[in-house]
Amino acid sequence: MKRIFEVNPWHVVSHELVPTDKRLQESMTSIGNGYMGMRGMFEEHYSNDSLKGIYIGGVWYPDKTRVGWWKNGYPDYFGKVVNAVNFIKVNLTIDGDQVDLAKDEISDFTVDLDMHTGVLRRSFIVTKGDKRVQFLIDRFVSAAQKELFDVHYSVHNLSAEPVQIGFISQIDADVFNEDANYDEQFWQVLDKSHAVTGGSMIAETKPNDFGTPRFTLGMQMLHQTDFRGANAPETEKAVTNIFRGTLAADETQNFEKRVIVVTSRDYDSLQALRSGLAKLSEKLSGATYEDLLRAHEAVWAKRWELADVVIDGDDAAQQGIRFNLFQLFSTYYGEDKRLNLGPKGFTGEKYGGATYWDTEAFGVPFYLSLAKPQVTENLLEYRYNQLAGAFHNAKQQGLAGALYPMVTFNGIECHNEWEITFEEIHRNGSIAYAIFNYTRYTGDDTYLKTKGIDVLTAISRFWADRVHFSERKQMYMIHGVTGPNEYENNVNNNWYTNFMARWTLEYTLASLKKVTADKRTDLNISADELAKWQDIVDRMYFPHDDKLGIFVQQDTFLDKDLKPASSIPADQRPINQHWSWDHILRSPYIKQADVLQGIYYFMDRFTPEQKKANFDFYEPLTVHESSLSPAVHAVLAADLHYEDKAVEMYQRTARLDLDNYNNDTVDGLHITSMTGSWLAIVQGFAGMRVRDDTLAFAPFVPKAWTHYQFHVNFRGRLLKVDVDQQGTTVTLVSGEPLTIELNGQSVAVADTVSTK
Amino acid sequence: MKRIFEVNPWHVVSHELVPTDKRLQESMTSIGNGYMGMRGMFEEHYSNDSLKGIYIGGVWYPDKTRVGWWKNGYPDYFGKVVNAVNFIKVNLTIDGDQVDLAKDEISDFTVDLDMHTGVLRRSFIVTKGDKRVQFLIDRFVSAAQKELFDVHYSVHNLSAEPVQIGFISQIDADVFNEDANYDEQFWQVLDKSHAVTGGSMIAETKPNDFGTPRFTLGMQMLHQTDFRGANAPETEKAVTNIFRGTLAADETQNFEKRVIVVTSRDYDSLQALRSGLAKLSEKLSGATYEDLLRAHEAVWAKRWELADVVIDGDDAAQQGIRFNLFQLFSTYYGEDKRLNLGPKGFTGEKYGGATYWDTEAFGVPFYLSLAKPQVTENLLEYRYNQLAGAFHNAKQQGLAGALYPMVTFNGIECHNEWEITFEEIHRNGSIAYAIFNYTRYTGDDTYLKTKGIDVLTAISRFWADRVHFSERKQMYMIHGVTGPNEYENNVNNNWYTNFMARWTLEYTLASLKKVTADKRTDLNISADELAKWQDIVDRMYFPHDDKLGIFVQQDTFLDKDLKPASSIPADQRPINQHWSWDHILRSPYIKQADVLQGIYYFMDRFTPEQKKANFDFYEPLTVHESSLSPAVHAVLAADLHYEDKAVEMYQRTARLDLDNYNNDTVDGLHITSMTGSWLAIVQGFAGMRVRDDTLAFAPFVPKAWTHYQFHVNFRGRLLKVDVDQQGTTVTLVSGEPLTIELNGQSVAVADTVSTK
Repeated sequence: MKRIFEVNPWHVVSHELVPTDKRLQESMTSIGNGYMGMRGMFEEHYSNDSLKGIYIGGVWYPDKTRVGWWKNGYPDYFGKVVNAVNFIKVNLTIDGDQVDLAKDEISDFTVDLDMHTGVLRRSFIVTKGDKRVQFLIDRFVSAAQKELFDVHYSVHNLSAEPVQIGFISQIDADVFNEDANYDEQFWQVLDKSHAVTGGSMIAETKPNDFGTPRFTLGMQMLHQTDFRGANAPETEKAVTNIFRGTLAADETQNFEKRVIVVTSRDYDSLQALRSGLAKLSEKLSGATYEDLLRAHEAVWAKRWELADVVIDGDDAAQQGIRFNLFQLFSTYYGEDKRLNLGPKGFTGEKYGGATYWDTEAFGVPFYLSLAKPQVTENLLEYRYNQLAGAFHNAKQQGLAGALYPMVTFNGIECHNEWEITFEEIHRNGSIAYAIFNYTRYTGDDTYLKTKGIDVLTAISRFWADRVHFSERKQMYMIHGVTGPNEYENNVNNNWYTNFMARWTLEYTLASLKKVTADKRTDLNISADELAKWQDIVDRMYFPHDDKLGIFVQQDTFLDKDLKPASSIPADQRPINQHWSWDHILRSPYIKQADVLQGIYYFMDRFTPEQKKANFDFYEPLTVHESSLSPAVHAVLAADLHYEDKAVEMYQRTARLDLDNYNNDTVDGLHITSMTGSWLAIVQGFAGMRVRDDTLAFAPFVPKAWTHYQFHVNFRGRLLKVDVDQQGTTVTLVSGEPLTIELNGQSVAVADTVSTK
Repeated sequence: MKRIFEVNPWHVVSHELVPTDKRLQESMTSIGNGYMGMRGMFEEHYSNDSLKGIYIGGVWYPDKTRVGWWKNGYPDYFGKVVNAVNFIKVNLTIDGDQVDLAKDEISDFTVDLDMHTGVLRRSFIVTKGDKRVQFLIDRFVSAAQKELFDVHYSVHNLSAEPVQIGFISQIDADVFNEDANYDEQFWQVLDKSHAVTGGSMIAETKPNDFGTPRFTLGMQMLHQTDFRGANAPETEKAVTNIFRGTLAADETQNFEKRVIVVTSRDYDSLQALRSGLAKLSEKLSGATYEDLLRAHEAVWAKRWELADVVIDGDDAAQQGIRFNLFQLFSTYYGEDKRLNLGPKGFTGEKYGGATYWDTEAFGVPFYLSLAKPQVTENLLEYRYNQLAGAFHNAKQQGLAGALYPMVTFNGIECHNEWEITFEEIHRNGSIAYAIFNYTRYTGDDTYLKTKGIDVLTAISRFWADRVHFSERKQMYMIHGVTGPNEYENNVNNNWYTNFMARWTLEYTLASLKKVTADKRTDLNISADELAKWQDIVDRMYFPHDDKLGIFVQQDTFLDKDLKPASSIPADQRPINQHWSWDHILRSPYIKQADVLQGIYYFMDRFTPEQKKANFDFYEPLTVHESSLSPAVHAVLAADLHYEDKAVEMYQRTARLDLDNYNNDTVDGLHITSMTGSWLAIVQGFAGMRVRDDTLAFAPFVPKAWTHYQFHVNFRGRLLKVDVDQQGTTVTLVSGEPLTIELNGQSVAVADTVSTK
């Protein structure tokens, strides 16, 4: 654990610049608007270690798959997020000397991410000899105008004498990915132009061997300032504007750099892109900085109105949940259905930008409650639109139907470990579950009947081909899988996988009854196929242990040496950094919820005794070495009234990045895990469920808290839920009255209801 | 299958030069002397595709381990065989024009590997305009003087006019491995010298990051010819001698290039190496070509005397077995106990030069019968001397004792697939078994009691730490292994692995009773440790099925979809080239003997009913996609009197490379599998066993053969075994009379015994 920022309800703020913590600072002060984003790296030159990263949603490059030993079926390429052309660069000079925060004498340093407004502010005083200059630097990526990056400088001369200030503003294509091979670069400059006060660049990703699209970026920088533009040198890969001016003693002047960033993802042709860039530049050049900032802040204010979670009695928890909400909304707010939630969002290049099953498992319930249904529907459509890729993936393994990828940009699998790529097929179950979850939450089966059914049918065909019939047991089995617990590989009859497969077939069979005859015809499902699916549903094998009363994680799990995780010596934790892989695999230790993930998904299908027996058996074996693990356990613990355990689990998820729990936040934030703290509060502490079209709550308050409050959207209503030690108050903020279930009682909410 | 050479009992001969078969020709005409060897590439320039390879035993380079996803415990480097400096190069010119067999008009082409003498002869006529010249080129690597490579030219002018012939002879360090990354080269030239008639080079492998030794090569070329030496150009990486002369019409002249090759493996210092090179050069420069050739041929004649297998009635089989014996002896004849049998020997760089468990499983029984005991003892000492590496490997996995590597040059594991590196631990069992096998065959337990016991104790400590106790079953288990059948990974309680583990512990416990008190003290084994081993022996778990009467390959094998391999569509064979890895893993198909490997090792411990039930169950599921598979099945089939099956299996191993069965002989020969055809004949058709210190035979003759005959060494005797349709004759060629078992009868052999 390492906390470098102050605890503050709305700010991520620090007054120190510690070189060894620079990457951590950068990760934590990342900003984004769903369309693009960047780490909290400085605009100006900084000569110490730094991880520079600016990312544009959906812009990636297919890198040749590199493995020690090739296996049939491996994907041809691994998609990697491309570090974008650096359009934020502004080097500063004082009397012609470059400012370098790594070397200069600096004081009054502050870096402050305002989570309420989505603005990153920095301020510092640079002293060079007898010259002292204060800089206040605000930047944002506009939540109101996705193509806009804006950085604003207020420069104050604190010296007794005048100083000359210089701004060297660039769009620079000479950038690298940190994991690049042999200094490979991805951007080729197509053209550049520049005037004294601005400049533009068109750049294109380099050709690739795999026939995936190349991406074009168009960038126009505009400068608003009283400083004078000067001639700037031409370089091959950069467009440069230079501004200089002299500040009298105590004088303050402003400088603003706006960059419009467009991509070929939004334009059909290079010509259209150029013209789009020009139009946006014209539109935005007319606005004042204050206009642009206000529009941006207004969007964030609206988001918070719908989504804020207030916690009293625990400032660290308060900051934690807001940080998570802020970063999630910065990564994805559903505007572009071709995009998804990357595990690192716009905060780092590791796993960067690609889509994982995290979205369906942990993202969908979050967006269902905190944004309009369309946002979640866009996440579902993302998969619908990638069906072709999923068919391709199944075919690569010689199987029918659709296999959604573990990691992808375009629907085609790009991960290359056989035990994951080929075997972690439970991911297909979560894709199906998200359709069910969306339909249950919204009460609207239009999506299910029009598009969802295509996905369900394709996944069901995969399951029906992937099972085999065991003559000996006279049951269907699924051999050779990796469950959500990636600390077991290539196991047989993983209970969770078998459960999700059977459930998908059941749900598909039921859903097919609801669709139109035309749709059924389109899907071309034979009676034989339906009968086969039903037979699999009826005769699916599940390992269980009657004596323990548990579902068994996989066929031979109970033969393991079943010592609890608490028996692992502290100096061997986390085990994934200390044990060789075989040791981990044969141990009984569970990386993240596996059987419990299935129980979590279908909480109301299991008896309290079943839930208790399984939780009591599996949780002590769980090492929670995936950031996705604690949230599910928090919700289940709360359901079982294990309140202390629920709070312990919550604490492991709420400040994972803010406190650098896993010692890897330098690489970027754990974006997809960030929904976990919200799930722990809302589904866990507040016990939110949807049961038979009714929203239900059964809240408790963690001992250390006095009160918490959150909002949820549900079927056209916005509800505010307030919980303190005395009871719960539910307020209908907007929408039609509805009946909810509160602590097991059915209550009508027209205005406010309370258990106090 | 592709047969490019003629069927001939002692020759691998072809009269065609087919560019698309060039690599196949090169693999098949490889020669070697245990110390060095080379593919059948041409000495002269050849501008079409070719896989050039000259290898020196024990000369390798540690390449950084490259994997897509790193796992804890992976080795730091992957050892690769280094393609040696090309010292065989001799470019030819006719009237100043370079000879290029890829482009010139050639006729009367022959390439002929004489397996009896170990000489590779080529001959061809080159026509350039009105000039016709015939070349006869003989080469060998001396079996009598390991450092000597010799190539001899006889050039005959067939033209009406005189022609000028040129020989441009080089030692050239500008060589690459075919799998090199980014044109990486391994040799750095330390120094060169040259006179008009010869030259020398000292070269060194480039530095590495892993602290493994660098190797130095010293090479001296000497030329014997009436052609005149001419000035040759100096180049950075090559030493060159040029010889020219004019042949009158119908005149014949000779040219000979000898190269002495020494390495730092045999000399303590660079100075000693230089002086050794000089001494050898002096010694060998005095000899005539005929002297050198005769000495070489005499060694081969002696080898054949001890080892030849004669087959009448099947010329293809005859050629097959001799080819295998020839290539095995070319790879390893036990002279250097720091070397071992590489899977490709000196015939290719793939898996090149490294040591696998093939040696103990398939090499040891072969050398036991066909060479002096010391040859096999050297193979055992190789492992004894690498104990430190085996301790290191176990420690990498957090385990006690010694884990012998899957792939190694120096005892340290260098393979990097987790399912192999960490899990294919049965290899340890074969290391132990080889000690048992050697002791049983020779009847001499000196090695066992002095060195073998150290290895057995270290392996037993590994097994004792690697098992775990299943509370549920109250038995010891081994989870997370890959058995010999690499088409299953990460399985639990692989019968073979458990069997070998228990057997090793039993054998170690028994052997410890035979060693001296001092030795026991040195080994530092406590009573508790012995008790623990005995407990594991007593309570080891073995999956079995009473109904089928079989040992079960691993815990859940019988739940598979158990269709026979014959049901796999022909266009999907071999499955490893058609199916994705998960498909292979969950299929019931077996790559090579697994349960049957254990039965093969301990044939006399099992009842005929057990052997039959297991063979009948597993063989139909076996796809034999490892070249190591058919031999074991041939021996077992013969034991069960399934003679047709035994012959079928023999046929898959005898001409594997000659007929390019697996379509991969272009990469080099399957050296370690080559023992298989001998094992199939001797242990299979002739039923050779060692039972209670007695050698036993129970021969049959394959229907298509009229007669076969082989020799075996056994405890100081050389026996000739002759089998035809009438019966078996055993002749004591040398050594003291002994009693053997023949078809179940005990018979004394003083001279000849026969069942006819």
